[in-house]
Amino acid sequence: MLAIVIAGGIAMMLSLFVTPLFIRYLTRHQYGQFVRHDGPASHHVKRGTPTMGGVVIIFAVVLGWLGGNILTGRVPNVSSLLVVGLVVGLGVVGFADDAIKITRERSLGLSARWKIVGQAAVGITFSVLALQFANEHGVTPASTAISFLRDTAVDMAYWGTTVGVVLFVLWSNFLITAWSNAVNLTDGLDGLATGASAIFFLAYVLVGIWKLNQSCVLPEAALATCYEVRDPRDLAILASALTGAAVGFLWWNASPAKIFMGDTGSLALGGAVAGLTLLTRTELLGVIIGGLFVLITLSVVVQVASFKMTGKRVLKMAPLHHHFEQLGWGEVTIVVRFWVIAGMCAALGMGIFYAEWVASL
Amino acid sequence: MLAIVIAGGIAMMLSLFVTPLFIRYLTRHQYGQFVRHDGPASHHVKRGTPTMGGVVIIFAVVLGWLGGNILTGRVPNVSSLLVVGLVVGLGVVGFADDAIKITRERSLGLSARWKIVGQAAVGITFSVLALQFANEHGVTPASTAISFLRDTAVDMAYWGTTVGVVLFVLWSNFLITAWSNAVNLTDGLDGLATGASAIFFLAYVLVGIWKLNQSCVLPEAALATCYEVRDPRDLAILASALTGAAVGFLWWNASPAKIFMGDTGSLALGGAVAGLTLLTRTELLGVIIGGLFVLITLSVVVQVASFKMTGKRVLKMAPLHHHFEQLGWGEVTIVVRFWVIAGMCAALGMGIFYAEWVASL
Repeated sequence: MLAIVIAGGIAMMLSLFVTPLFIRYLTRHQYGQFVRHDGPASHHVKRGTPTMGGVVIIFAVVLGWLGGNILTGRVPNVSSLLVVGLVVGLGVVGFADDAIKITRERSLGLSARWKIVGQAAVGITFSVLALQFANEHGVTPASTAISFLRDTAVDMAYWGTTVGVVLFVLWSNFLITAWSNAVNLTDGLDGLATGASAIFFLAYVLVGIWKLNQSCVLPEAALATCYEVRDPRDLAILASALTGAAVGFLWWNASPAKIFMGDTGSLALGGAVAGLTLLTRTELLGVIIGGLFVLITLSVVVQVASFKMTGKRVLKMAPLHHHFEQLGWGEVTIVVRFWVIAGMCAALGMGIFYAEWVASL
Repeated sequence: MLAIVIAGGIAMMLSLFVTPLFIRYLTRHQYGQFVRHDGPASHHVKRGTPTMGGVVIIFAVVLGWLGGNILTGRVPNVSSLLVVGLVVGLGVVGFADDAIKITRERSLGLSARWKIVGQAAVGITFSVLALQFANEHGVTPASTAISFLRDTAVDMAYWGTTVGVVLFVLWSNFLITAWSNAVNLTDGLDGLATGASAIFFLAYVLVGIWKLNQSCVLPEAALATCYEVRDPRDLAILASALTGAAVGFLWWNASPAKIFMGDTGSLALGGAVAGLTLLTRTELLGVIIGGLFVLITLSVVVQVASFKMTGKRVLKMAPLHHHFEQLGWGEVTIVVRFWVIAGMCAALGMGIFYAEWVASL
């Protein structure tokens, strides 16, 4: 638990104090964001704001996570190592995207093909490794069972181990791609994705702690209520570093943003979301806790589907936050209200999580 | 624990859905806020925004707290009853203040004398009662010892019981007055006090749960680490209702605010802060967790003291948030950054709280 506090504290301080240095560096070298041309016209004033803030977020997360472990005499377990690998890997893909946008001075970065190849390479590596490394109880970081609040009876290895592994890699990659795109889409208003991520990761600190205290490896564990997670403490430490890094970054990312997280940040944080839900065995719970990201993503899906099928648009503009901008809500009003929704989703998810545990007593 | 989740959920939903009805009612009857004349000139546009939103907050807190208890078959204990009494009592004082402002169409409400009399009547009643109602272990809701993370050895009853009671009533009233004024001063920018309160109360949900799990009445309790609190679960349920009510209200109080909480809200929430710190025996920890409120209050104290003693002002304008407005920061930037500070204070406080527990193992 002390490691959790230290990890969060270090990450928060680092992203708070290193971000302004990074902003100065980017400004001096005139690395600015080129805002998409199909966004609201009012956003064109944002041209020139430095981006790639995700570099600092990732830096803060990694040092916070390492610091929390080392200063309490711990060695990180394989679970958090895998998620950190996923975060850094997707961060590199996002960084390539951001860097191309800046050097070519255009809003569209990495070509869709290379982005998919990069995400898939990182995602497949993560997924395959996550099924290895059984501990002394035979528990691996991830499993082939679809999980809600814990692994369910729906096991993709029903048709054999090989099929199970293949299906898991597909499922895991779907989650990684979906979550990183969801955070990316949410990152359209100053501070929105940063604040929503902080709320999500804070909830996952609690999920990790609770799963640690109710772990099946404890001698007093009851079979019906215990959770089989390889390294719950480890994942809680990482979630705390993620929370701290997001909160510290929010200082600079709050309206009017002095820096954006860029694809570097949104892909990395989306990877963290996917990795945490996969390895804490809460893939579907994550959909509730991260409900705001899901809602925003669905708004794009519905908009595109409706336009292709009926020629009509459901929303004035997608993603959802731009719809409300078109309705005349202020950017800040939308951001705070969306944070309220994110908080409600997290509270609902934690409520379901706890109620199921009580019910299975 | 389920009661905690339900209390927060009910309070959040109530303040989210009842506030717009209340706004409509106030607007129809043309009850608007009259912004202070000595505030920044930019705030004069806020004239006419409905106030007294604290009425809905208090309503949501009380129903959430009752609902969480009743739906889980609990009967509220005396601790939460006392804090609810304090919240409602101070809410009535604040309401009188707000109502006079509105009906007399002036920014200054209740005269200072009557406000102090009202606060003192409520505060003294709370303080005297908080020393009664010993449970079967002899533990009363409050004690005459000054508390940091738990009761310290500094006991005001050192010079005898009567002196102890008198000193406690003074100390308790000081805390109640200080905290309600602190929240009142913080309530100067849209959403600022509401968001900071939500963060404070969320931390106190965790303080309550932790003190419950490490209570001295548990058979396995170790003397050095256990906490003597009469009704920790009870206070956690109330803290959850307070958190939910604040989050739901934030939807409407976010910039540009559709309603203000008014003195009704700020005195009530300040009372809740004081009551929770007194009865969870964490009076000084509360100063750290609520560090943002303290900082803002100190900024006023320093400004006034400096002006009186040297004739010079330390800040461009007090409270602190107006100073940053004068420096050219946007209102929203200040609000989000102050929330970040509130989050850091809460994290620091929780870190100290936990580290001391580990150290005393």
